Amino acid sequence: MTEKSTETKVAEAESAALKLAQLSDDERSAALNAIADAIIERSDEILEANERDVSEAEELLAAGEYSQALVDRLELSPSKLDSIAEMVRSVAAQDDPLGETQTARELDEDLELYKCTVPIGVIGTIFESRPDALVQIAALGLKSGNAVILKGGSEASHSNRVLFEIIREATSEMPDGWSQLIEARADVDALLDMDDAIDLLMPRGSSAFVEYIQDNTSIAVLGHTEGICHVYVDDAADLSMAADIAYDAKVQYPAVCNAVETLLVHESVAAEFLPKIAERYVDANVEMRGDEASRAIVDMEQAESDDWATEYGDLVVAVKVVDSLGEAIDHITTYGSKHTESIVTEDAERASRFMRSLDSASVFHNASTRFSDGYRFGLGAEVGISTGKIHARGPVGLEGLTTYQYYLEGDGQVVGTYAGADAKSFTHEDFDGSWTPGSLSDR
Amino acid sequence: MTEKSTETKVAEAESAALKLAQLSDDERSAALNAIADAIIERSDEILEANERDVSEAEELLAAGEYSQALVDRLELSPSKLDSIAEMVRSVAAQDDPLGETQTARELDEDLELYKCTVPIGVIGTIFESRPDALVQIAALGLKSGNAVILKGGSEASHSNRVLFEIIREATSEMPDGWSQLIEARADVDALLDMDDAIDLLMPRGSSAFVEYIQDNTSIAVLGHTEGICHVYVDDAADLSMAADIAYDAKVQYPAVCNAVETLLVHESVAAEFLPKIAERYVDANVEMRGDEASRAIVDMEQAESDDWATEYGDLVVAVKVVDSLGEAIDHITTYGSKHTESIVTEDAERASRFMRSLDSASVFHNASTRFSDGYRFGLGAEVGISTGKIHARGPVGLEGLTTYQYYLEGDGQVVGTYAGADAKSFTHEDFDGSWTPGSLSDR
Repeated sequence: MTEKSTETKVAEAESAALKLAQLSDDERSAALNAIADAIIERSDEILEANERDVSEAEELLAAGEYSQALVDRLELSPSKLDSIAEMVRSVAAQDDPLGETQTARELDEDLELYKCTVPIGVIGTIFESRPDALVQIAALGLKSGNAVILKGGSEASHSNRVLFEIIREATSEMPDGWSQLIEARADVDALLDMDDAIDLLMPRGSSAFVEYIQDNTSIAVLGHTEGICHVYVDDAADLSMAADIAYDAKVQYPAVCNAVETLLVHESVAAEFLPKIAERYVDANVEMRGDEASRAIVDMEQAESDDWATEYGDLVVAVKVVDSLGEAIDHITTYGSKHTESIVTEDAERASRFMRSLDSASVFHNASTRFSDGYRFGLGAEVGISTGKIHARGPVGLEGLTTYQYYLEGDGQVVGTYAGADAKSFTHEDFDGSWTPGSLSDR
Repeated sequence: MTEKSTETKVAEAESAALKLAQLSDDERSAALNAIADAIIERSDEILEANERDVSEAEELLAAGEYSQALVDRLELSPSKLDSIAEMVRSVAAQDDPLGETQTARELDEDLELYKCTVPIGVIGTIFESRPDALVQIAALGLKSGNAVILKGGSEASHSNRVLFEIIREATSEMPDGWSQLIEARADVDALLDMDDAIDLLMPRGSSAFVEYIQDNTSIAVLGHTEGICHVYVDDAADLSMAADIAYDAKVQYPAVCNAVETLLVHESVAAEFLPKIAERYVDANVEMRGDEASRAIVDMEQAESDDWATEYGDLVVAVKVVDSLGEAIDHITTYGSKHTESIVTEDAERASRFMRSLDSASVFHNASTRFSDGYRFGLGAEVGISTGKIHARGPVGLEGLTTYQYYLEGDGQVVGTYAGADAKSFTHEDFDGSWTPGSLSDR
């Protein structure tokens, strides 16, 4: 097989996208279940290819160029393949995100406007070196009727090639070319210029990488740069609750973007709260880095100004004593990344002020920042967490992979009728109903 | 008054945006009505400044560097000011686009997630030389709780300065700096780099200008590039209806983006339809440019390949005979700009195939393309028409100037409870309700 150019692959995806949009949910979901079956049936092939990736990674590990954690993440097993197949089936079982009539409006008699959800089109995705990421993204793309360009990490290239081939063969009923694999970094740069053909880019990876993508394309980008999340312990907080939340938000899974990075504590409760949380953090090996006021209460490292703007992704937390709710809000506005912030307080008024004053995607009252997640939010499968404000923000589910289209059903109406001296008026009346292709509703 | 730098203006807007988000609809609407009053009260000032713009433009007109149409567009009058004030009042009277709870979901007992509409933040706008454009954009921005950076056409600079000053003074109750005027083209380029402070850019103007903006910023851009709209006359069309629609779509207002540019006609009705529409087009001075098959039926200019991809914005229409619905779809997919397309047919099945096969923002059945408009769609005031697929598409109303935020109300829940061996399950049950700031609902 001669390798196709990236341009050819994207053109194929573009043409497949238009056909994919016309398939029913049953058809798309059946193809997803066929992928799940094929992953189980052909697991020997997958594991064999994965072994090659893992042994190459282990050589790099031996040479000190790779970490054990990365090798672990790369490695597949029969039980991991079972759970990947299960994940694909659960995507198939989700509600159809397409064809939902969001608005049905009579503009005039027998002139009906429908706003309906449709796929976005062609989505370019660039993701990390977990072989399950390729399957997950392809599954979410197919469920939402989008053609996908897949670029995985090079460390998983053998696994990715086999998985891609299995998906391709299992979805032979789907429009040809709906998914495309690209492998070279240069091909990613080629994607960035294809703003006529690609409708959305979804990069996953480091902040620096996501920013590089944003800075080098005019295509819309859905992704998250940093997760600098805050917990603010108000002077009206239940301090035992505050300690539980601050502990969970840091310790339960420190490597993820919704973990807390900076703890802000009102000065009037700092002397009581800080020793309480410090004891628990010390037990969990959390390193605290504080400002002068915090260090006067509990012995800890000194926080430098960089600390307020750092996503540690580790068992480290910055601590600052603030003199007011207002100072907490200002601090978050200055250093935050608009991801997730939480206030702990028994005072509803103060909670409201905190929540309405911050423009982060998720703002919580008396709950851990770690709840900021598609599964916990009940969105079903999660595409990612967006720190942008446009299109989709916060945890993004299948809905974030859709857009809408306006369908207008008439019986020959022209605008001239509604203009000039004898202009007819519009009725503009919303009604319950959904678009029946090609015909006016029988209301 | 020393002129502030663009950076300072944007920083002021950023800080004002956070405060603006906390005001009530009544407060924002009262400020809008104050703007309307001030425009009437201070109309002499406005007209005086406008006279300077107009006389400068007339000098350019005399020198042949300006068209009469542009001078007309620039010119204000007492009655035009009345209608501008009326427009501002109608924006004030619209439903509040903010604070709408789109989803209320119980995640678990006393753990409630609310998805609510909020302003986007800071919106950079660049618009054409109509002084009413400044007022319209400022009004839509304020109603939707957004801070706006306003850059109007330099030909209207005297009018814009006075109008801006009037708006600023009339909205002294609003957060200081919520609207900002910039005047130099170099300042526009400065905006393009401020992706940390500006959340959305809305350029209006030529396609080339909108593309320039898209290509030179990593900020999200909402705008429309081209309006290459199509009417397809199917072989199952009512030909008299088809002629009415094709006539209205071209002639009723040829300069706008939702006018038809290419007429596609099924070969089996071309011999009957083309002479019928040609007669009406000739009466209205519409120039027809056709392919060979069309010219064999009606005498017209020959269409070159460029014609299929041209937005004439004038009394010119390209005409092509197609052998099937499929060829019409392919033609639109190749040459269209994803704006608005219409099929005329009595066959619901064929209408459905046309509408579902095209990924244009608006696809119509038996109605003129000219209906593609915020007012006609019943969206209230129109921000513009977007040809992108992300965030907002087609005619965009106030809703397009909003995004959403997730509010989570808990009573101390931590994620650790829902993880591991004894993990508690989420309930994930949607309920009717809206966010009451800072407190759990009494369900």
